[in-house]
Amino acid sequence: MLAPTNPATAYEPLVEKQSITIPAFTTQGGATIPDMTLGWEAYGTLNAARDNAVLITHYFSGNSHAAGRYDADDAAPGYWDSIIGSGKPIDTDTYYVISMDTPVNLGAHDPHVITTGPATVNPDTGRPWGMAFPILTIRDFVETQTALLDTLGITRLHAVMGASMGSLQAYEWASTHPDRVARVIPVIGSGWADADLIAWLNVWGAPIRLDPHWNGGEYYDGEPPTRGLAEALKIVTLHAQSPEWSNGLFGRTWASPDANPADSFDNRFQVEAVLDAAGAARARTSDANHFLYLAKANQLFYTGHGDSLVKGLLDIEAPVLIIHTNEDLIFPGDAVRETATLIKSDGTPVDIVELQGTRGHLDGVLSIGQAGAAIRAFLTEE
Amino acid sequence: MLAPTNPATAYEPLVEKQSITIPAFTTQGGATIPDMTLGWEAYGTLNAARDNAVLITHYFSGNSHAAGRYDADDAAPGYWDSIIGSGKPIDTDTYYVISMDTPVNLGAHDPHVITTGPATVNPDTGRPWGMAFPILTIRDFVETQTALLDTLGITRLHAVMGASMGSLQAYEWASTHPDRVARVIPVIGSGWADADLIAWLNVWGAPIRLDPHWNGGEYYDGEPPTRGLAEALKIVTLHAQSPEWSNGLFGRTWASPDANPADSFDNRFQVEAVLDAAGAARARTSDANHFLYLAKANQLFYTGHGDSLVKGLLDIEAPVLIIHTNEDLIFPGDAVRETATLIKSDGTPVDIVELQGTRGHLDGVLSIGQAGAAIRAFLTEE
Repeated sequence: MLAPTNPATAYEPLVEKQSITIPAFTTQGGATIPDMTLGWEAYGTLNAARDNAVLITHYFSGNSHAAGRYDADDAAPGYWDSIIGSGKPIDTDTYYVISMDTPVNLGAHDPHVITTGPATVNPDTGRPWGMAFPILTIRDFVETQTALLDTLGITRLHAVMGASMGSLQAYEWASTHPDRVARVIPVIGSGWADADLIAWLNVWGAPIRLDPHWNGGEYYDGEPPTRGLAEALKIVTLHAQSPEWSNGLFGRTWASPDANPADSFDNRFQVEAVLDAAGAARARTSDANHFLYLAKANQLFYTGHGDSLVKGLLDIEAPVLIIHTNEDLIFPGDAVRETATLIKSDGTPVDIVELQGTRGHLDGVLSIGQAGAAIRAFLTEE
Repeated sequence: MLAPTNPATAYEPLVEKQSITIPAFTTQGGATIPDMTLGWEAYGTLNAARDNAVLITHYFSGNSHAAGRYDADDAAPGYWDSIIGSGKPIDTDTYYVISMDTPVNLGAHDPHVITTGPATVNPDTGRPWGMAFPILTIRDFVETQTALLDTLGITRLHAVMGASMGSLQAYEWASTHPDRVARVIPVIGSGWADADLIAWLNVWGAPIRLDPHWNGGEYYDGEPPTRGLAEALKIVTLHAQSPEWSNGLFGRTWASPDANPADSFDNRFQVEAVLDAAGAARARTSDANHFLYLAKANQLFYTGHGDSLVKGLLDIEAPVLIIHTNEDLIFPGDAVRETATLIKSDGTPVDIVELQGTRGHLDGVLSIGQAGAAIRAFLTEE
């Protein structure tokens, strides 16, 4: 008798989105946000000692849906389902895997995302916050997660792991809460936003600021800046890929065989049409102000947010498994290796796994399975 | 007695901008443009045999000012002055170096640029062309140059050399006029626009299209889309650099020591302020529609513009000296090497010089002196 092709996932329970409300969240900048409500989900079971939790922190355009399905008919599971589940490298038979929507989450209009940000009604005014919402940092994201863990009675994480913006949260966790983190797995990210990343994040947001519907962030009563948001998400989509992807898939093919791009500015190449469609699709569930707040949080990031960039990295004491790819245009290999060098300069163990692929930055999500064995082993190391 | 530190340039004659009007220029697309007026300049003297001409084709944001000064007080000479002049690698004691402003030149409002494009008044309507101006290709640029050479009685070029978009013109010259080109020096460019470049050129233009003042290209009677154009030129500026440049110069320094970027969306990092200023400065002499026409011409480029990308490169028979850098984000090393492989696959001699530097694509302009000896030798080869 043949075994089912994918026995581990065949019996996974459905995932349920939950939420937590922090009545008064104080930001690192000193502002207070009433009713900070955020979504979260978990896979596996918290053990009696409450010491088997693995926290997954999400990327810029992501959310807490890291694995599993909400409904058996879902088109796709959570983004890291290949490594999270029963029998998988992050084995839900052993670990309690938990993930949380960040504040100012990009997917403010995604029915599966629960977040608080500029699009949320400020209970003090009865109107959406808009750009009056306090500026947040990656550290603030981490502190929303400590609040959730506190309510669950989890004092120490078996591991924290995240991709891209999620890796920044992972570095931040290890640096600022060394007593609460036993292992860190930053994926496709470095220990600070350098000038190059700061500049590109500025470029990402430019189309939103140029869209007349953005209107300084005051658009919740009218038409939102959908075109600008779609263009911003188009840049992100392109930047997160590699030339091998676009050249290999599209070459110089026209979007329509009857519409030569040489004949009209309306006629596009296929790669343009695909990116336009991707940007427009992502814009439908996203919020433009949330995009700008996320870009700001990423620009402001350096591990520890303290007196010195180096000190923040030296404060990391938990063993670190860094996963990245040299084809990454957003967090280039040099920046990742420099981060690793600083962390281990005082003796903290750091291992690096280099992913191979043609998808650039995105391989940190799509090709994470290549690091499955390394992740499994790292999680069981004493 | 000490020699002057720079004797070669000390006695260079001043450069004079000239112009040519092509009464009726027919594009490859079949449109006719009346009174196509374009600027040009030259350094050195055309010999009696008219066989010592070196054509310099310019880059996206450039113009025909490749060397020398218009006035002794000019702040800077032409962009390749380090290799063009008396005693320099492209020695004006030997060669007649000539360069021409392209049609739809970006610097439509630069007093030193003479071009014809959307910002030009269409003599048939008495109003600026706007987006009714015919779409042009790199091949069209080349044909404006053949028209100039015809009037000067130059039937064959000793060499054609250009950087970036100028390299595309150099490939095109050699492929479509093999009898008129003895040598080719493409710098920081490849033999076709691949999907990745097509996509980025789309991204470059997005801020212009989003600026409400762009108005479908109809802005010559009112306020031009200066903000969108500045954002577009900011992307170009960043893309043409390397992370080593931004990280090395700016790091995480604030634009103003009193304005913490964490406190307000108005407070920027220094790298943002520098790029904003660069974009705004370049926008003052540029035209937004011209930008879009240039982006289109670059997207449409593949050597020969014929039935096959490969055939266009195989049609190149003149020896080729390719100069590039592996830090180039716009024309990556892989694309340049693939171009070289195709050209030499039928026996055409191809040499490659790799520039070293921290400025990315821009090293093709700033660091061209590294290739000076190779250029000098290549120009004297029989």
